[in-house]
Amino acid sequence: MPDYPTALGASSPDRITLLGRDLAEEVMGEVGFGELAFWLATQRRPAKGEIRVFEAVLAALADHGFTPTAITARLTFLSAPDSVQGALAAGLLGGGSRFLGVTEDCGRFLHDVLAGVEGGHPADDAEWDVLALAAVRSAREAGRLVPGLGHHVHKQGDPRTARLFDIAHEEGVSGPHLSLFAAIGRVHPRVLGRTLPLNGAGVCGAALADLGLPLELLRAFALLARTAGLIGQLAEELRDPVAKDIFLSVDLNNRSIPPRPFDG
Amino acid sequence: MPDYPTALGASSPDRITLLGRDLAEEVMGEVGFGELAFWLATQRRPAKGEIRVFEAVLAALADHGFTPTAITARLTFLSAPDSVQGALAAGLLGGGSRFLGVTEDCGRFLHDVLAGVEGGHPADDAEWDVLALAAVRSAREAGRLVPGLGHHVHKQGDPRTARLFDIAHEEGVSGPHLSLFAAIGRVHPRVLGRTLPLNGAGVCGAALADLGLPLELLRAFALLARTAGLIGQLAEELRDPVAKDIFLSVDLNNRSIPPRPFDG
Amino acid sequence: MPDYPTALGASSPDRITLLGRDLAEEVMGEVGFGELAFWLATQRRPAKGEIRVFEAVLAALADHGFTPTAITARLTFLSAPDSVQGALAAGLLGGGSRFLGVTEDCGRFLHDVLAGVEGGHPADDAEWDVLALAAVRSAREAGRLVPGLGHHVHKQGDPRTARLFDIAHEEGVSGPHLSLFAAIGRVHPRVLGRTLPLNGAGVCGAALADLGLPLELLRAFALLARTAGLIGQLAEELRDPVAKDIFLSVDLNNRSIPPRPFDG
Amino acid sequence: MPDYPTALGASSPDRITLLGRDLAEEVMGEVGFGELAFWLATQRRPAKGEIRVFEAVLAALADHGFTPTAITARLTFLSAPDSVQGALAAGLLGGGSRFLGVTEDCGRFLHDVLAGVEGGHPADDAEWDVLALAAVRSAREAGRLVPGLGHHVHKQGDPRTARLFDIAHEEGVSGPHLSLFAAIGRVHPRVLGRTLPLNGAGVCGAALADLGLPLELLRAFALLARTAGLIGQLAEELRDPVAKDIFLSVDLNNRSIPPRPFDG
Repeated sequence: MPDYPTALGASSPDRITLLGRDLAEEVMGEVGFGELAFWLATQRRPAKGEIRVFEAVLAALADHGFTPTAITARLTFLSAPDSVQGALAAGLLGGGSRFLGVTEDCGRFLHDVLAGVEGGHPADDAEWDVLALAAVRSAREAGRLVPGLGHHVHKQGDPRTARLFDIAHEEGVSGPHLSLFAAIGRVHPRVLGRTLPLNGAGVCGAALADLGLPLELLRAFALLARTAGLIGQLAEELRDPVAKDIFLSVDLNNRSIPPRPFDG
Repeated sequence: MPDYPTALGASSPDRITLLGRDLAEEVMGEVGFGELAFWLATQRRPAKGEIRVFEAVLAALADHGFTPTAITARLTFLSAPDSVQGALAAGLLGGGSRFLGVTEDCGRFLHDVLAGVEGGHPADDAEWDVLALAAVRSAREAGRLVPGLGHHVHKQGDPRTARLFDIAHEEGVSGPHLSLFAAIGRVHPRVLGRTLPLNGAGVCGAALADLGLPLELLRAFALLARTAGLIGQLAEELRDPVAKDIFLSVDLNNRSIPPRPFDG
Repeated sequence: MPDYPTALGASSPDRITLLGRDLAEEVMGEVGFGELAFWLATQRRPAKGEIRVFEAVLAALADHGFTPTAITARLTFLSAPDSVQGALAAGLLGGGSRFLGVTEDCGRFLHDVLAGVEGGHPADDAEWDVLALAAVRSAREAGRLVPGLGHHVHKQGDPRTARLFDIAHEEGVSGPHLSLFAAIGRVHPRVLGRTLPLNGAGVCGAALADLGLPLELLRAFALLARTAGLIGQLAEELRDPVAKDIFLSVDLNNRSIPPRPFDG
Repeated sequence: MPDYPTALGASSPDRITLLGRDLAEEVMGEVGFGELAFWLATQRRPAKGEIRVFEAVLAALADHGFTPTAITARLTFLSAPDSVQGALAAGLLGGGSRFLGVTEDCGRFLHDVLAGVEGGHPADDAEWDVLALAAVRSAREAGRLVPGLGHHVHKQGDPRTARLFDIAHEEGVSGPHLSLFAAIGRVHPRVLGRTLPLNGAGVCGAALADLGLPLELLRAFALLARTAGLIGQLAEELRDPVAKDIFLSVDLNNRSIPPRPFDG
């Protein structure tokens, strides 16, 4: 008969524990929500500086206005107002490779480059630049995009990027992923022939990787941030509803065309 | 042509705002994640004491071990490891009327009782007891359960309940919903003939309602807390996988029975 | 140690069974998909006439153009094209109380009225009218809508309704739910003071209930039909993409407003 | 102002069309559900033999007993019985790369091999074997698995495979994907050194590709089939509930372990 090991929530008639701590006495009222999310994911309690960087990342990713995920959550709430969980879940399902995936892709890309380095990490900016240059060249030769480069709106620079670098430095938790990401920002014009901004989703992936969070779940932290954002969207929908107008703006502007057989 | 009003995220080429604030300068590094979630939902920045109560609620609801939602998230991750968003969404979809619904039901129940009070709220415990007694009697006569009463494990008292009352009092943010809930805890034995504990999910609903959060979305805060818990479950699944054993423990113990026509 | 009884899929090294039949020999190539869905839900093989009515219901509910569910599926596919399951799931999550719920609500309403009848069912139209009149009056007195009445587009009559009545009569599977629904169509103007059409979603609920399908799952058949419709939406999106235009039409027409504190 | 072209559902006050046909008169009662699903996805009406093969595929994929998707749907229904759409969506979310992905992977693999053939397709089994041998060798050299080969239960042969080949031949709709798949079944032992069965999920992918269905959506048809299966699971759960036992069998066999910090 199998048993199922876990270090997370457990309870007996008179006590509840979470991560080995007494939930009521040691967690409730003592541990902030960002701190708790970090702790749950890594099973280690983060330091104060790590919490600040982690929460700055969550703030950067929480809400970007009328994204497909926000529209989806609002339309689903319109259609099934009895099921808040369905509206949130529908919104999160848009958090895939394209709209929320850059954070994860960037963290993994940086990790893979660093994993290929023999000996220690570069010692100064010049050495980081060498590594970054090789990485950008190699991506370009393979016909792959470098994740975290470019933004369709913030063409001259994403304001989140510089700010997150600053916070990580202030807190002393900037590590090799952020260093490599910064170097990519410096050297990529030599390979690509034009200067692109380092975007906010990318720098968040670098920071999360430096915090030691599991690479397989970097996207999950973007989704956690977005859950808070989607609740904000639903709360606003309750007061200033737009979902019905969105639906009607599509439905009333439909244009019937004849079916065309799909030919494989 | 419709336009779509929003006070949430907005951006121009050189600036991103959230709730009317500069995201990079005024939010990132300055606002904790619990605080931000509260702010997004209410469009007002919470006071420090409100944040502490709110985060204590989130901690109380984040993870309860191998619940159906946790098992579901792990099984979905086993089955579709390429889609973290799907695993989280599947887990959240269990957050409905039965397992995560008590928080919302309790908040609404208390709200409805308070909404029926003419004049001001009760002035002391004795007056609260009168109101609570009427509410419990009325629920019983209607054949309805009083949400927040009883727990299948913590039969002698849920340790989260006393703790959350304490924190709310310490922070000076205990309001009428918590007062009424406490009174229900005192008087219900007179109606029901036995003493039940005030459970943690219920007290969380009372506290969230006292914080002025939208009643229609109380369940959403339980889901936000649970998102952090589910990420913890997936992170643990990566290291100590149990989903395959769970699946096999069911599949290998299946027992074939003949079909029996359903008769309407 | 628990075991888990099931009459559905089972397999041994050289044989797979479904509903007690040999899947390869007796089901594949022998059983249509509508028939199989009916059989799976009721564990009895439907007769030919029942299949025709059931599939007519599925056809009626499969796709209604640019509904919130269709828009949601397309937006989610745009955002997470790597996860077709996520796009379909997101679309289905809109199938709640408001947009796809009428089918279930109507089936349950008719069932409840019939369950309250002592003795046998009415014998002729006049008797059905008496029952229907009482039901509509009782709903109106309770301030409840009669599900299945009214349509925002097909104000003079929903073309699906007459057709489904005809098919059910042709196949000899019209039962008490359809009879009562027809009677509601005849008598409601006497109570409501105006004539509303019997809508397609409602007649589908009546027909599904007459087929003996489980009332708790009537909405599930609407969702099954819609799954086929959503695949059609995604297939069309691959060729004639509109999701990005929809997203931009919202995002570019956003209007920033100042935050307004929510006041409970 | 954008408009949104579609050949799917459209309606005017007195008429509803689907795929350019009158829904009430030409679709309801005239078009089976498998046929309709095919038609919606390809915008062409399938021939009778194509429908039989398509529905045989759906039957093969509808339900495989207590899979993670079935367990997930049942647990979600236990936890949120008010939201049937959530239970179905949660179940479908397990339809990702691992459990339902073989169908899509196999169809794409075969398609890619065929796309690399210059001139016409092979003319006889010997020529197909040459092509298959090259494809299997090339996959092996790249360290990739050949999708559709092997089954953990049906080690001597998956009964669905031979049956689907037969039905496709009977109906005259066997095409190059099935031919190549059959050849892979003949030649792979020469490369891999052992004989593996062609599995049912793989042959379904080959058949769907031969039917001309969009490759990007092959997984979607597995999900459509599974939707019917999941409704069967929920219907059985209503009568013979097992979800609570499954939940308790996990929860009661949890084993608390100390947290171990994750080390990146």
